[in-house]
Amino acid sequence: MSRVAAVPAHQLSDARTAVRERAPLVQCLTNSVVQTISANVLLAAGAAPAMVDSVEESAAFAAVASAVLVNVGTIDGVRASAMHVAAAAARAAGRPWVLDPVAVGGLPLRTRVARELLEHRPAVVRGNASEVLGLAGAGTGGRGVDSTAGAEEAVAAARELSARTGGAVAVSGEVDVLVAGGRTVRLAGGSPLLTRTTGAGCALGALAAAYAAVTDDPLVAAAAAHAHVGLAAERAAAVAAGPGTFATAWVDALDAVDGPALAAALGDGRLR
Amino acid sequence: MSRVAAVPAHQLSDARTAVRERAPLVQCLTNSVVQTISANVLLAAGAAPAMVDSVEESAAFAAVASAVLVNVGTIDGVRASAMHVAAAAARAAGRPWVLDPVAVGGLPLRTRVARELLEHRPAVVRGNASEVLGLAGAGTGGRGVDSTAGAEEAVAAARELSARTGGAVAVSGEVDVLVAGGRTVRLAGGSPLLTRTTGAGCALGALAAAYAAVTDDPLVAAAAAHAHVGLAAERAAAVAAGPGTFATAWVDALDAVDGPALAAALGDGRLR
Amino acid sequence: MSRVAAVPAHQLSDARTAVRERAPLVQCLTNSVVQTISANVLLAAGAAPAMVDSVEESAAFAAVASAVLVNVGTIDGVRASAMHVAAAAARAAGRPWVLDPVAVGGLPLRTRVARELLEHRPAVVRGNASEVLGLAGAGTGGRGVDSTAGAEEAVAAARELSARTGGAVAVSGEVDVLVAGGRTVRLAGGSPLLTRTTGAGCALGALAAAYAAVTDDPLVAAAAAHAHVGLAAERAAAVAAGPGTFATAWVDALDAVDGPALAAALGDGRLR
Repeated sequence: MSRVAAVPAHQLSDARTAVRERAPLVQCLTNSVVQTISANVLLAAGAAPAMVDSVEESAAFAAVASAVLVNVGTIDGVRASAMHVAAAAARAAGRPWVLDPVAVGGLPLRTRVARELLEHRPAVVRGNASEVLGLAGAGTGGRGVDSTAGAEEAVAAARELSARTGGAVAVSGEVDVLVAGGRTVRLAGGSPLLTRTTGAGCALGALAAAYAAVTDDPLVAAAAAHAHVGLAAERAAAVAAGPGTFATAWVDALDAVDGPALAAALGDGRLR
Repeated sequence: MSRVAAVPAHQLSDARTAVRERAPLVQCLTNSVVQTISANVLLAAGAAPAMVDSVEESAAFAAVASAVLVNVGTIDGVRASAMHVAAAAARAAGRPWVLDPVAVGGLPLRTRVARELLEHRPAVVRGNASEVLGLAGAGTGGRGVDSTAGAEEAVAAARELSARTGGAVAVSGEVDVLVAGGRTVRLAGGSPLLTRTTGAGCALGALAAAYAAVTDDPLVAAAAAHAHVGLAAERAAAVAAGPGTFATAWVDALDAVDGPALAAALGDGRLR
Repeated sequence: MSRVAAVPAHQLSDARTAVRERAPLVQCLTNSVVQTISANVLLAAGAAPAMVDSVEESAAFAAVASAVLVNVGTIDGVRASAMHVAAAAARAAGRPWVLDPVAVGGLPLRTRVARELLEHRPAVVRGNASEVLGLAGAGTGGRGVDSTAGAEEAVAAARELSARTGGAVAVSGEVDVLVAGGRTVRLAGGSPLLTRTTGAGCALGALAAAYAAVTDDPLVAAAAAHAHVGLAAERAAAVAAGPGTFATAWVDALDAVDGPALAAALGDGRLR
């Protein structure tokens, strides 16, 4: 008897279509290295990025945005304050928000802030295995932004975090593992060139926020973002001459991968 | 009888040539999302970018720069202070400066600061219709960085702002509308892919500053920058496979579009 | 009798291989304009970038990074503090660090800070001629980030700085001149398109840090980084249609240029 995935493929492709049709306004408080690629990835997907991230403006904007991303990649004390008020405002206004705990585990400031932010209940947490372990208090972090653990090693930590937030927790890796409550989804595919493009993972977090704005199921949102990114990466890798042309082709492919394309690709067994 | 444009085409193409020959040093206090593309657009045009934007260094540099750009896209209290001193120093030194009121209208801090900056009399104000309306106090802003109004709806607000600054006010849109005193110029062309490239509009503001350094007529500066950007976008759109390759090809085309190319394109009726 | 270069070519190509094999973790405190391209250049070379640059986190990370880059391109008072603690921590932990004195000479804050940082003895100083002259107190700076002096004019200043730091000092130019103690290396090649790509020089500084992590000889590190960048630029220029496609092709070529490719290219007399 064949297994049925915890999330039906058509829900992911429907969400892809909805992002383009509804063009959610995604507020990003993200690290300074990846603002540009995050905005371009959102635009390619059909969403509307807004990088409003100051202490002065973040809360007001979070109340009108469709969804909010908080990425702690280049945190300092001032940015931490903006993240707190934005996440709190999003929660108060009933807007979904996504937490990307970049390099959490080893560095004290970002580790403390990311854990505190969990109280505002992110719809999606997205990170690599070391980051998810570090956020859950079960690890001491990776090597800079790189994971030193495999995705499967972080499943228990992901489940524990999901129980605390009530949302989805996505562990990116060679095979992505995504959990929400008792449900688990695994996604194969993608390209190693994603790890050689700065900001690809962070842009995936931003995209998860766009998806969270168009579906009530955070596991669908997270899985659709991962599937979208992975399929576009495969297409880009097929035409790229190296990591430079890959990054450019990936943005093209994120635009080209629409709902039907995603539905077709998800029929090949990559979603389990 | 055919209408004659308020600005002759040859003045725009002459300005294009002058930017390349004189390589104006353009100081940019711009938002953190678009610094890279703004610098690359200025370099492609033949100008020399300098992203000196701190409170400590902005005023000293503004006194020696050829022109200054102030873009409020990711403003906070500290950056607002730097913008004030840079605009004041540019004005005191007789250097032209350009104001890009990104998302002004809805968010209180940037709206207040942008309005205060008008006292330093920017040579060019460049925004979309919602931003120009918001700056003039005639609207409450767009949707994030996107305009919810058409360019023609902002013409009266643009004229009112121009009367206050003594400079040009450019409203970017499907057809750009630019005013200075009693003169009005309209420019057709461009590509929808510009709106899917983060920072394209902001880089246009930076380019307007480069042009303002080489001509005494701010309407010529603003119109030349818009024509340059629009023609390059058309060329890029013709070879692009999507928004990623468009952005790259657009930088190539900004380099390739020289004075004669601009003169030839402006003969086709796009300038009214 | 043919002259033998102060640094044998095989040491440069061996260092290239070592960067890929050992994937050094390079912490970058760099200017906000060039963070993305610096990270992508490091990734293309096979290194692991980490843009940890806050006052709160910089020192702790510098103690575990393989090497550190400090680039003063968009300095302010807060960033200056982070640079001080990171450079001190790197020195204390025995990690090599690289100083890129962007636009030093004319602007007081960055000039003072860069000179103070010399006490932490950077393994490599990399700048253009005006910057090296300005750092040594022998010039008043260039025009923004552009040099107004030729590389050979800065050789005496470079030697004087090298005597103070005990490391290498690299003066980038049409022909790069690199000194360490009594040794001098000159490198021809590269492409003018490098000067039309924002951040190319800054990314070269980041790459020098990656190389400094894999060799004990800072002159080898600096020369290998310059040779790698120059050869990749030549390859990219051969396929580029303009500065936009050049930047993308350059990242591809930085990946493609491996140790044997560098060894082959260095046999053509470019290294003296």
